[in-house]
This record gives sequence, structure tokens and C-alpha cells, in this order.
Amino acid sequence: MKRTHQSGSLSNANIGETVTLNGWVQTRRDLGGVLFIDLRDRSGIVQVVFNPAYSGEALQIADRVRSEYVIAVQGKVVKRAAETVNPNLPTGEIEVQVTEIEVLNAAKTPPFFIEDGVEVDESVRLKYRYLDLRRPEMQKTLWIRSKAAKVFRDFLDNEEFIEVETPILTKSSPEGARDYLVPSRVHAGEFFALPQSPQLYKQLLMVSGLERYYQIARCFRDEDLRADRQPEFTQVDIETSFLTQDELLGMMEQLVVRVFKETINVDIEAPFQRLSYADAMGKYGSDKPDLRFDMELIQVSDIVATSGVKVFASVIEKGGEVKVLNAKGCGTWSRKEIDDLGPFAARYGAKGLAWIQVKDGEFKGPIVKFFTPEEIEAVKERTGAEEGDLLLFSADTKKVVADVLGNLRLKIGRQLGLIDDSKFKFAWVVDFPLLGWDEEQKRYVAEHHPFTSPREEDIALMDTDPGKILAQAYDLVLNGYEVGGGSMRIYKREIQEKMFRALGISPEEAQDKFGYLLDAFEYGTPPHGGMAFGFDRLIMLLTGRTNLRETIAFPKTASATDLLMNAPSEVDAAQIDQLHIKLAKKPVEEKK
Amino acid sequence: MKRTHQSGSLSNANIGETVTLNGWVQTRRDLGGVLFIDLRDRSGIVQVVFNPAYSGEALQIADRVRSEYVIAVQGKVVKRAAETVNPNLPTGEIEVQVTEIEVLNAAKTPPFFIEDGVEVDESVRLKYRYLDLRRPEMQKTLWIRSKAAKVFRDFLDNEEFIEVETPILTKSSPEGARDYLVPSRVHAGEFFALPQSPQLYKQLLMVSGLERYYQIARCFRDEDLRADRQPEFTQVDIETSFLTQDELLGMMEQLVVRVFKETINVDIEAPFQRLSYADAMGKYGSDKPDLRFDMELIQVSDIVATSGVKVFASVIEKGGEVKVLNAKGCGTWSRKEIDDLGPFAARYGAKGLAWIQVKDGEFKGPIVKFFTPEEIEAVKERTGAEEGDLLLFSADTKKVVADVLGNLRLKIGRQLGLIDDSKFKFAWVVDFPLLGWDEEQKRYVAEHHPFTSPREEDIALMDTDPGKILAQAYDLVLNGYEVGGGSMRIYKREIQEKMFRALGISPEEAQDKFGYLLDAFEYGTPPHGGMAFGFDRLIMLLTGRTNLRETIAFPKTASATDLLMNAPSEVDAAQIDQLHIKLAKKPVEEKK
Repeated sequence: MKRTHQSGSLSNANIGETVTLNGWVQTRRDLGGVLFIDLRDRSGIVQVVFNPAYSGEALQIADRVRSEYVIAVQGKVVKRAAETVNPNLPTGEIEVQVTEIEVLNAAKTPPFFIEDGVEVDESVRLKYRYLDLRRPEMQKTLWIRSKAAKVFRDFLDNEEFIEVETPILTKSSPEGARDYLVPSRVHAGEFFALPQSPQLYKQLLMVSGLERYYQIARCFRDEDLRADRQPEFTQVDIETSFLTQDELLGMMEQLVVRVFKETINVDIEAPFQRLSYADAMGKYGSDKPDLRFDMELIQVSDIVATSGVKVFASVIEKGGEVKVLNAKGCGTWSRKEIDDLGPFAARYGAKGLAWIQVKDGEFKGPIVKFFTPEEIEAVKERTGAEEGDLLLFSADTKKVVADVLGNLRLKIGRQLGLIDDSKFKFAWVVDFPLLGWDEEQKRYVAEHHPFTSPREEDIALMDTDPGKILAQAYDLVLNGYEVGGGSMRIYKREIQEKMFRALGISPEEAQDKFGYLLDAFEYGTPPHGGMAFGFDRLIMLLTGRTNLRETIAFPKTASATDLLMNAPSEVDAAQIDQLHIKLAKKPVEEKK
Repeated sequence: MKRTHQSGSLSNANIGETVTLNGWVQTRRDLGGVLFIDLRDRSGIVQVVFNPAYSGEALQIADRVRSEYVIAVQGKVVKRAAETVNPNLPTGEIEVQVTEIEVLNAAKTPPFFIEDGVEVDESVRLKYRYLDLRRPEMQKTLWIRSKAAKVFRDFLDNEEFIEVETPILTKSSPEGARDYLVPSRVHAGEFFALPQSPQLYKQLLMVSGLERYYQIARCFRDEDLRADRQPEFTQVDIETSFLTQDELLGMMEQLVVRVFKETINVDIEAPFQRLSYADAMGKYGSDKPDLRFDMELIQVSDIVATSGVKVFASVIEKGGEVKVLNAKGCGTWSRKEIDDLGPFAARYGAKGLAWIQVKDGEFKGPIVKFFTPEEIEAVKERTGAEEGDLLLFSADTKKVVADVLGNLRLKIGRQLGLIDDSKFKFAWVVDFPLLGWDEEQKRYVAEHHPFTSPREEDIALMDTDPGKILAQAYDLVLNGYEVGGGSMRIYKREIQEKMFRALGISPEEAQDKFGYLLDAFEYGTPPHGGMAFGFDRLIMLLTGRTNLRETIAFPKTASATDLLMNAPSEVDAAQIDQLHIKLAKKPVEEKK
């Protein structure tokens, strides 16, 4: 029985037609000898009816059918009686009177219902992923993901980008996260590494004169996982030659606008706000601020430095700072409600959380007595504090202050209902520091990666004060998440060598690890730069999910396990021998 | 200087315009103080001229420029004087009179010229791949590859296929080629495997009810390499539910027609010829016949079985056969020319090569005397031998006869100019045997893979005579290459279990290795099937190349080495330790 229609596509327009459908039994009800089956395929659901009046033998066969059976049915589309119309179903005004049925495959009762919002342990969903993916919300997510990839490609194709596939079996890179390694069978004692990104290949493609490259690329990091990390992940990888940073960002904005319009029909405003790293950290305590609401961090170090609050003075003396978050409307909170913020702040390094309430026209709270009236007035003016406000003070290193108040801002903003979840607020964070000091390794490390170009005007600082250099790097931020990032690249050998020097990489090591890149820079490398979108995370935000695993067809758990296939797994000793390796010890006998 | 045009895009239409170009110096000639530079970007080449009359300082700067420097120039497009028009250049009627130049980057003399047909060792090209890819023929190949991917996607998108990414870190599979393994850091003693194909995932996606899936997927096989193999390769991976084999093949033909039309503007005729495996082997001695010419193998066993040629009789008695290839027009070859075929035939297992020439109206050759006149007449009639023909006899097992005559057919067809290289002749080879007997392992092995469905009418043979079963499997053949293949899959647990049994896989082993698939089959699996296109090979044929490495941006050598990045390579001991493995011995000190 050849399918003529999809279940979800039927409507009043088909009334009177004889149709053949293929699909799964969603539900089956027997009402006084008449059988009603909701037949599901990827397009949706339609009710098909088996009635002694017209179904003949088909009724007997249908009687043996259960949930998730795969069946083919043929019958006539008819209008439902008014009282049986189902307004919750797009096809709810019609039904199919079945005259023939074929059971294509039987089904056991699945371990959970095939429906949205199913309450079942995630590990069960992952083990039976093939059933989990039958649920409409999962199918919808995969469709949006597929569609988004298509829009990315169409846009980039239209802008004359060339799609190039770069190797998965590549070389271990000394800078960056931990690599997944693949032992070589042909070259004993040697290893391939899975790429953390196609960074160097895409730069070499610019040396090749391709000018505009893209790839929706699989990347790998052998890191301990968090909810928003997967050992393998997907990025939309982009590189261009001869464009300025502004030109590139402008093009990428148009790309993002298209993706949101054509997948979820949301209009995104462009150009996006551009925010320096310094401003993002200063105002929001984060390099990926959620800009759907204001509530900025306010600098009060200058006001409170000489106040009677000893801890403020001493922090400032040691180079730290004091900032305030004005939680508007929280001035009426009870002492307990305020105190409850303490443990939360402590998670981000706060040693305490000073506060002032504006209540009955007065500043109130334990620290008020240490302020002079002038200081009170200055704080009031600076923070715009008015009746009913709650001022939260953080005094610590800049980093801790940003972390504490940045996270309090998010928590309280959420609590106060300031965050509109239907809004998509993009921004570029720019002017990142090029280098960060690693206290443990006692050396500078690249904040972005070692191929990021300093700003032209900062190149002179490379030999004198590398910590001060700002980079031509940019992150794309959406609703508090980093959804992309990139940089203009170094394209001259001498600058790249200076960069390696600043990172404490010796010329020998640089030549050993990145010789091909340094060599390439000598054969006519164009100015170039690019970015990568975190595709999984972007899809997560596009589809309103909160977990990356929901956006990936076959994800791994937090312990990097595939519960469906049971991978990783032990392998035959012969396989291991051929790779010139041995197990360090017998595998521990424990079940994942 | 912001680029306004691409070099190769300029034409008479731009005469009089001031343009800014960015690109590479292809050549630089000094004619009496006037400098001519051929400026190359990815669009093509245009001549830019530096003349004291209008170039000012730019001339001095240009004087220091050499091949492969990256420059920006600004100037006016003018018509060339008639006698200086270059008809070999699309932009040959114009040139740009430069008034400004900026050197964006300098370049050393590259190790080989950036031009097509460069004569340089492939290892040098691979080491400097970023320069090799600057050559127009390489750029063109990459562009066609990118375009082909786009056409595949557009077609499949239009047919409502959903693109799904499947894992790269997956589980080692017992059937198939050798896996690349990835030691797990989290699970000591366990390994991921890189996928040889997304076969099981795509079948599970059909269980999920996605109905139509595709992915342009990276696949991996740790095999010893030949010219047309790479350790990682790309396939266009497709799976559908509820379609018959004929419906699927018909859709795939339309897809192929679109790809050829929209990449290289060639019209392919559809539907494609369908050829049973038995016919392909019988007529062409190959399951991937080159159908651009005829020259079929001719069965003569029945005629020669009783002839005086003892070896013919004995081969036939032992179950072998005798076949003839009629090399038309080769009857005039010298004895030496004919004898030279011997070593070639021996490569494919021939122990000798009997022949008859038709010359001066007579059969001539060493074996003629062993035939009766009636046998001569019968051979003549069967083979259509006429004056000037050469009959080549192979007598051996069916396999050897096919190999020997199949390859002689290709060699002689090529030699006689019977093969039109501008032609693309597609065919489907169908009705493959499901199982092949492995003499070494003394068991049946899957000819396609263990998930391929037998033909409906052959299912009964699974318990009685598995070797006779034909599969619902099909290969797409183009000009003597297999460019795709697939099958309708088993979708019922009991059939899959029978299949494993026929392969000598115990129920316990089947459950251990493929339990999730057998389980999935019990929860409502639709009838499904699909195929995969060998993307690299298809691009090779599309672009008229003869080596897969020419179609891949960063390929590996025959010893699975990346000469550009020097991968695989040794890694830090600490990295190895973390993976709970040890090197079996010190790596051998030898240079790849």
C-alpha cells in the first residue's frame, strides 16, 4: 500500500478522497466495537476509524494493533460530526474511514510514552534514544537544527564562501584544551589528534587564496563535561581574507538575522550593540552579559575608599574595588531574604555581602553607621537609589567583584521578572585583552588563541607590556551565552614570532609545533580573520531548550558515555596490539 | 585600500572606472621602465601597469614586489592597445593603470610555480599544500566539490530530507574494516571507535520516525591505502522509510542528474540502466562495469568442453568455465603484441592466455588445430568473429575468468580508443548475492553488510541455502567506478537474528554487539533503506581527475601521513598516561 499522503497534511480539502497513510499508532481506543487509532507520522497525527459498517476484515486486524505498531491504512477522508471535532488537533475536523490495513511491524510497549514533556530519567531517554526522538518536541528541535544549517549554508553560499572539509585525523596542538588521541597503526608510537577546531587549516586556506571559507565542522575536546559541553560539538567555522573586522561583523550580523527569521520567524535588530570587554565586565560583571535587562554594576570605590567600612578601604588599598548593584524594589525584603543571598554570593568568591536598604526615606542596614552623610549622599546619587531599593556591595579583587555582582544581577533580574524569555538580545563584545597572566604557569597565555592579532596600535606593546595589549577579537553574545567568537589573525611571521615569545614558547618549540604556519606566512599570506558559531548552543537558544543534549541527536552523558551504543567499550586485544600500545593496567571492573 | 572589484571580473564594461584590487602577484615584467604585473585573486587574473607617466611613487614600490607578494592596487581600467591584447586571458582586452599600491605582505620564492600542470613531486605539493591549492586547477576542483555538496543538499532539502549529525566518537563494530580507536580518559581500558559509516545511526533514525535522513558524513577506515582510498573519506549518507527500492533509486537518479547538470553542465540520461550482478559479472567480468563501450565476455564452455584443448575440458569438469573476449580489429596484431597480454592477464590470475586470430578468412593460432570444424564454426557464430578479429580465451574458475577478461576488456578497450572520456555512463548493479563464503574463516560473510535485507522471495532460503540468497542491494556504477551503494534493510528482529546466525554470529555475541539494534527492531521499526555516495570519488570523476588526493583539500599519503602538519606525531608522555595506555615499545627512530 503506497502512501499517498502524510497524516498531518490532511485537512478539509481532502474530504471525499481515498488516501493511503503510513505511520505509527499513537493511541488506540475501542468505543463499542468501533476502533479509533491516532496515526502518527513525522508530519503529525490524524484519526483513523475502523467500523464494522465499512472496515470489514481490517477491523479484525486493527483489533490486534497496539501503540507504536507501524501500519499502512487506506480509507476515505470524511468530515467529523460536529460533536466529535477535536480542536486540539490540526486535523481535528476530519477522520479517515479505513477499508484496508496492513501491519508493517509490531511493537512492544515502549519504556515511556511517546509524547512531549515525558517524565522519565534522562538516562532512560538516552538508552532508548530512537524512541525519545519520536517525541514531537525532539523532532521539532532536529528539524530546526537542520533548517538552521541550511540557512547558514545558503547565506554563505550566496556570499561566495566555499565549503571545504578539513581533516579529523590531525596533529596534536600544544596550546588549548586536552586532545582526543588516535594511535597510529602505520607509525608506531605516533598519534593523530582529533581537532579542537579547524583553526590552522582555515588560516592555511586563506594562505591558499580561497578568500572566503566555511565549514560546519565537528570539533573535539577531551574535557570534563558540564551541562553545556559535549566531547564532540559542532561549529559553523568561517574565515575571510581582505575584510576588516567591521566588514566581517556586519556580514555576520546579516547572517544571524537570516537564521532567526527563517527558522523561528523572529526579527532580530541589526546592527548589534558593540561593547568593549572592559565595559562588559565593568557594567555587567561578565564577558557574555545578558542584555535583556539593565541593572548595571556601579563603581563606588572612590566614594567609599575613605569610609569607615574598614574592609572597603583595605580592599581598595590592595588594588581591588567596591561596586554596587541596585536591586530596585527589593528594599522591602526581609532580613532573611537578604541573608539568603550570602551563600549564593559565596559560590562566586564573596567573603561577605554588605547591603543597604532604602526604606522610609532612609538608608538602613548594618554598614550605614560607618558612612558620613556626605558619603551616603554620594552613594545615593551615584546609584540612583530611591525608596524601596536594595544596594548590594561587593568589595574584592576586580575579578571576584565582577563574578559576585554579575551573578547576583542575573539571579535577581530573573527573580524580579526583568528577563523577557521571548527576547533575543545580541551584542558583540570586542577589544578583549590579547593575553592573560597565568599565575600557575607563571606565563602569559592567549585569551583567545595564539593566532589572534593585536590591535594595530598595540603592536609596539608586545615587547614592552604585553599584558596591556588589546586584541582584534570579538565574541558574539546572546542572552548571556557566548554563541560565537573570532578574531582577525596575525598574518606576518615576525608578529607571530613575537606572540610565541610573549607566550613563553621558544623559537625551537614554535618551529617544531607550528613551523608549517610560520613557513606559510612567508609565502604571501593575506590579511585575514574569521569566527566560529557554537552551533549546538545556538540551536539550544533558538529552540528554547536549556540543555545541549536536547539539541543533539545522539549526545553523550556528562561522563562522555554513549548510553545507546554503550561506547566507549572494551575492544579485542588484537586490535590494541596492532596500534603498538598496551593497556596501562587491567580495566577496572565497574559499570558505567 | 578597500577592494572594489575582483581581478577576474573586470571587462570592457569597466573601462574608465577607478578600481581597487587585492591579490597575489602572478608575474612581474619590467619593459623599459614600465612594470607589468599579472594580479591574481580567486576570480582570475588581470594585468596592472606601473608607468612613470601616471604611477608616481607606486612605481618605486612596485619595483620591489616579487611573485606571490600580496598587494592592493588602485587605478583606472583602460582598453589595451590592439597589439597588446592577450587573447589567452578573459581580461586580456583591458589593463589597470595603477596610481596607488600597498604591499600587504611579502613572499619568498615559492618551491614551485603557481600554475596548472606543474611538474613537481607530489610530496612537495602536499608539504606546501597551501601553495598547491593556489593553482587554478586545484581551486576549480575545490569549487566544484563545494558546489556539488550544495546541489546534493538543495535537492535533498527540497525532498524534505532532514540533515542529522551522527557521532564521530562511537563504538567499535565487529563486522567490517579495521577501526580507528580512541582511548577513553574517563573510562580506563575502554575505547571509542571512529565510524566506518553512520550505518547503524541512520537506521536508528528511521526507527525514530524521521523518515528521510541525510548527512554529508566523514567516515574512517584504518586500512592499507591504495590510490583510491583515504583513511578518512566523505560520503553522502541517505536513508528513507516507506519507499520501495525502485522509488528510492528513481529519486537518487534525479539527484545525480541535478548534480552533474549544476556543477559541470552535463546532461545525464535517466533512468539509468539496471544490470543484475550476475549479468555484470557475466558480460563484463566486473560488478562495476565501464559501460561506455560494449565488448562483452562470451560464454563458450558448452562449445569447447569436448574440444581437444585439454585444459578447457579439465577446467570445465572442475566447475570452471571458458569465455572469450572478441578484440575486434586486433587480428592483425603481431605474435609479440599478443604475447605481451600474457603478463597483464597473469596479474589477474590467468595461467595462460589462449587466442585465435581471424586472418585471411581463417582461424589461426596455436590452439586452432585442437578444434573440429564444427567447433570452429560454433565459436565463430557465438562470438561473431570476422576477418581481423582477435579472440582471447580464458579458462579458469568463474572468478578468475571474470577478472582476467574483465581487465583485458578495459585495457584493450582503452587501447582501441573505444572509451569516450567525455561520456558519463551510469548504471545500477542490482541483485547482489547476500552472502559470500569466506574460505579462510569457513563461514559466510555479508557481501554488503549484515543489515541488508534478502529479497522477499529468498527469505525461505536463509535456513536452507543461504549462499543462494539475493539481496535487496544496489551499487551505483559510473565509468567503471562504484560511486555509491546501498540496500533495503532488514527491519524485523527475527530476520536480523537469522542473518546473524547465517554469519556464524552467536545470539550472545549478536546481543552484545548489536543488542540496541535488535531491541530497536521490537519497538515499531518501519521498512527502510538507503544508500551512500562516495563523495570523494564522485568529485574525482566530475572533475576529470584520476587521484582521490586531488579532490581533498588536505589529503593523506599512502602511508596515512599528513605531510603538511606532520601528523601523526609523537605526543607528550603525560598525554599518553592520562589515557591509561602505554607505548608497546619505544617508537622506531625512522623518518616517514
